[in-house]
Amino acid sequence: MENKVEYLSSLRITPDGEKVEKDVVVREVPLTIFLNRQEIITLMCTPDDLEDLALGFLYSEGLIENKEEIDGITLGEEEGSIRIELKDKSPVNLEGLKKTSTSGCGKGGIFLGQEGKTKKVESKLKVSLFQVLSLVREMEKRSSLFRKTGGVHCAALAEKEKILIYREDVGRHNAVDKVIGNCFREGLTTSDKIIITSGRLSSDLSWKAGKAGIPVVVSRTAPTSLGARLAQISGITLIGFARGRRMNIYTHSWRISR
Amino acid sequence: MENKVEYLSSLRITPDGEKVEKDVVVREVPLTIFLNRQEIITLMCTPDDLEDLALGFLYSEGLIENKEEIDGITLGEEEGSIRIELKDKSPVNLEGLKKTSTSGCGKGGIFLGQEGKTKKVESKLKVSLFQVLSLVREMEKRSSLFRKTGGVHCAALAEKEKILIYREDVGRHNAVDKVIGNCFREGLTTSDKIIITSGRLSSDLSWKAGKAGIPVVVSRTAPTSLGARLAQISGITLIGFARGRRMNIYTHSWRISR
Repeated sequence: MENKVEYLSSLRITPDGEKVEKDVVVREVPLTIFLNRQEIITLMCTPDDLEDLALGFLYSEGLIENKEEIDGITLGEEEGSIRIELKDKSPVNLEGLKKTSTSGCGKGGIFLGQEGKTKKVESKLKVSLFQVLSLVREMEKRSSLFRKTGGVHCAALAEKEKILIYREDVGRHNAVDKVIGNCFREGLTTSDKIIITSGRLSSDLSWKAGKAGIPVVVSRTAPTSLGARLAQISGITLIGFARGRRMNIYTHSWRISR
Repeated sequence: MENKVEYLSSLRITPDGEKVEKDVVVREVPLTIFLNRQEIITLMCTPDDLEDLALGFLYSEGLIENKEEIDGITLGEEEGSIRIELKDKSPVNLEGLKKTSTSGCGKGGIFLGQEGKTKKVESKLKVSLFQVLSLVREMEKRSSLFRKTGGVHCAALAEKEKILIYREDVGRHNAVDKVIGNCFREGLTTSDKIIITSGRLSSDLSWKAGKAGIPVVVSRTAPTSLGARLAQISGITLIGFARGRRMNIYTHSWRISR
């Protein structure tokens, strides 16, 4: 936890007056990812689970496919870099990646105009309403960093009954990439899993879940138009506004039993 | 407004039962920006104020400096592209941009290791506590799209007494870029302005405000460590958790009079 936060002085003003206090804020640092010695990207992130983050990012971008390809991972934490070497040392094709550069909370490019090419998630998983809501509650209980700083997103991979992987990051996508990266590294089956995120369900989330073959995506907040469309095409059950005893199921509702 | 939202069917589940209803969700579409016919980036965004978005993005990235440089702007809304032509037709240097590629809600690269080179905001602006809180309330009143969909961020440029520019987008950075782009296009003075955002105060926000020369940045939510550090270095007053009658002032509190 200590690695994930910093303490800053702030002048705190309330109706009762003002005083200087120590505030806990989430750490944000740059991490530059190299693949076969090629510089791929610099992510602004919260410095823990950096191997998971790098692997999840590269996997979501289609730059790595399975862990057998990987020859070694070297984390240079001091200099904010991570180097991933593949067994195949040929130069990495970055044509796809360059177009995905993105600002804002949307993830651009990869699947644009390629909806037909989207991988369909093949899974017969069914989950009950009660299970989904329990998992959301469970994730919220775990989000202590968020409660402390108000500045991070969290994401979790769960099976029906419990959360298996839980990650936090200053970046919405990063939290999901950390989860997917860990899943990739552990070689977990994904077709029977559920991903839960604290963030909005935009197209990049549906893309990442589809790429990883995760059939159910849940958030306590809203989807975007393209997030829902991509989930529909990819065979993903997309659930928003999952709070208390409520939820809105946008796509493939047959997976949710009542 | 109609351009900014879509209506989707969702299966809405509540303690009282379930029914299929029309849900309003925020539109998310790709916009590819070309500068002098070079493809720069594809942003996932909410389709309004696209000229402001493109100009604000290019300005924040240091690819354009003033509106006199610009020869023409052509919006191809159908195909999701915007083409900006400069009077100077020489190829654009994208070396800096490539490193800024980013995932997640952090904006990478540009200023990394360049803290010494950060432009200092020169402004003697002072704003009262009351004015800051009024402006936050005013922005919240305007955020009707957010209230409808739960899926957008908003940003505003204000002078002491009132909001001058208000923009919304599915992307946190995009909302800010739309504000800065409009400011750029209108040729507004920035040293006496305040920027308010619904999103977290990460490094990219401090970077964008610094680049635009805006001395006060306010949010109802949290800063990150690097967001605060960059604001400190850039001479920006950074205010988080501005809600009701409270706020936390992280940097350069001398600008806020009580």
